Formats: sequence, structure tokens, C-alpha cells
Amino acid sequence: SKSKSTKFANVNFGDRGMSLEAELNSSNTYYLENDIAVIHKKPIPIQIVKVDYPNRSAAVIREAYFQQASTTDYNGVYRGRYLDFEAKETKSKTAFPLKNFHEHQIEHMRKCLAQDGICFVIIRFAVLNRLFLLTATDLFHYWDHQADGGRKSIPLTDIEKLATELHYHINPLIPYLDAIDPLIEG
Amino acid sequence: SKSKSTKFANVNFGDRGMSLEAELNSSNTYYLENDIAVIHKKPIPIQIVKVDYPNRSAAVIREAYFQQASTTDYNGVYRGRYLDFEAKETKSKTAFPLKNFHEHQIEHMRKCLAQDGICFVIIRFAVLNRLFLLTATDLFHYWDHQADGGRKSIPLTDIEKLATELHYHINPLIPYLDAIDPLIEG
Ligand SMILES: [Mg+2]
Ligand SMILES: [Mg+2]
Repeated sequence: SKSKSTKFANVNFGDRGMSLEAELNSSNTYYLENDIAVIHKKPIPIQIVKVDYPNRSAAVIREAYFQQASTTDYNGVYRGRYLDFEAKETKSKTAFPLKNFHEHQIEHMRKCLAQDGICFVIIRFAVLNRLFLLTATDLFHYWDHQADGGRKSIPLTDIEKLATELHYHINPLIPYLDAIDPLIEG
Repeated sequence: SKSKSTKFANVNFGDRGMSLEAELNSSNTYYLENDIAVIHKKPIPIQIVKVDYPNRSAAVIREAYFQQASTTDYNGVYRGRYLDFEAKETKSKTAFPLKNFHEHQIEHMRKCLAQDGICFVIIRFAVLNRLFLLTATDLFHYWDHQADGGRKSIPLTDIEKLATELHYHINPLIPYLDAIDPLIEG
């Protein structure tokens, strides 16, 4: 077996710049520090099997496994409303493949929506460097029609019509809450 | 160095029965399955340093460290409102020691409250087997007065007056959302 340690750094700078996750984390820090919203990335769930307690130093986890996340990437509170969302990137230039979602993420969003939470997905088309905020309700329309002969992806042309395009900014880097205001005022 | 693996089981059955955390997790499962609320325990944040990728099997974390949680134990959505809370136990029979809280947990609750979230703490007096739901606003009163000569704990007699006592039930085990309804209805 070989070991890697780079993959799990908090900020994953790649050829194309920051990862979408790092960009959203940076945006959330801005929103938090400016008392605009409290939104955090949920930690990856880990099943811990073995822990060493060396003398005089911190506990060291020596055997643990990644668990499948049962919910979404982010949640928090903004203007009295519960926000819950997933961030996804695709290399496709023409459509967003639905296989990027797991059934349990969809089910989690359905349950949050039933409690009147605001649920959405932030999608980046990495090659095009275009970003969209698509509501969970619009996502479910495509998800639910896969089974009865529907497409396995959402065409970019549909996303352009249904979603709100987000444009990079300075502070915050991704001003995605601007696209939430009309949903609250709705 | 010696190793332990028992401490991190999801359910921690002790002499006195389930831990408060396990009782709340069970209650949240009931609320989730019955479409009453979506509330999850946040995973413990872990800093991962080394991961092995053995052939044909799952990645194994070989070196990682516990990080201090910067927020609270639980959050989620109920009746359109964002809920955020901490669960704490004490062995004291007379008062709840404020040293059970970290400054960053208090700051997190202040920020959530400023966004009109519903923030509170569920306190168990383990020896008395009594449970209370205390709002963050009431907690802050005691927290803020520590510095100017106030008490370092909240007397049980004050908690009896300010908080809502919770009584164990069958389903859910701890029906704490009943104490939230009056807060929502105002
Ligand atoms: Mg994601
Ligand atoms: Mg706790």
C-alpha cells in the first residue's frame, strides 16, 4: 500500500485555482465575519477504530475509515431561514450528470424542503468556469424523471434557463446568498 | 503508548444507560423518520495527516488528530426554523458549571441567534436524572456575568425557573421539540 497526505488538505489548490469547496469556504468565512450568515461545511464523517494515547501528547487516530455522508455538504442559517446545499463540479461542457448525486442526498434535501428549509445545489462547469445555483425543486424534476425514460443529465441550456448564474466577486468570492434573497422574499 | 477503541463507539452505553448524545440521536432518528424535523449530530472534525490506499480495499486513515469543534453538537430544521444546540451533562446535584462551555461555542450561538436561529442547550443532571432545555439567551445572561464577579455556574434552582424540564418518553425518547413550539409561536 502507498500513502498520500496531500489529498486531504483543507484548501486544495489545483491547476485551475481553488476548488469549489475552498471558494465556498472562503465565501462562508466572509459571511460569518461580517454577520451576514452562519454557514459551515459539515465535517466528513469518519468511523474511528483505533486511537493511541501517547504520554503527554494528543490522541492519535491510527485506524479509521471514511463513511458515506448521509446528508449534503453545507448547512446553516441566513435571515431566519435554514439553508442546506450541495456543491458539485463537472468537467462536461454541455450537461450536468445526475450520477453526481446519491439517492440519500436527494432524500435529505426532500426532508429539509418539507420542513420549509431552503435547499439548492451550486454547480460549477469547471471547463467553462461557469457557476449556477439551482434549487432542489428544479433538481428533483430531473432526478424523478430519470426512471421513466428521462435524461441522465441536466442540459446546460436548461440550467441557463432555470438556475441563477453566479459571478465571481472579491468579497465574498462567490456571492451566492444574493441568489437566495429572491427565494426568501418570493 | 496504549490503544483504546471503545471510547468512540457511536452509542456509549454506560452504567446509567445510554449517554445523552445517544438518547438525542435516537430522538432525532424518530423525528426524521416521522417527517417531524431534520436534525443531525455534527461529525467530530478530524485533521487527517496520512491515508493508506491498500489495493482493492477502502482507504485507511493511519494518522489523524481530533480538532476542537468550532460550533455546537447539533443543528437542523424544524417548522421552517433553524435549530442549533449543544448537549451537556453534569454530575453536580446543585448547579451547572459554565466551564462546560467554550468561548467559541458561545460565539457560534450568538451568531446563529443574530440570524434568527433558535439556539439552546439541553442539560442533564446525571445524578438526579433530570433534563432541561435552556435557551441560549438565558445561558448568555450567566455567561456574560462571570467576568464581572458573577457565579461560575447556573444554580439548579435558577434552571428550574428559567428552563423547560424535559421528561423521558417512548417515541421520541427525549421529546425536546415540544419545548421549541412555544418559542416558535412566540
Ligand atoms: Mg459536494
Ligand atoms: Mg456536547
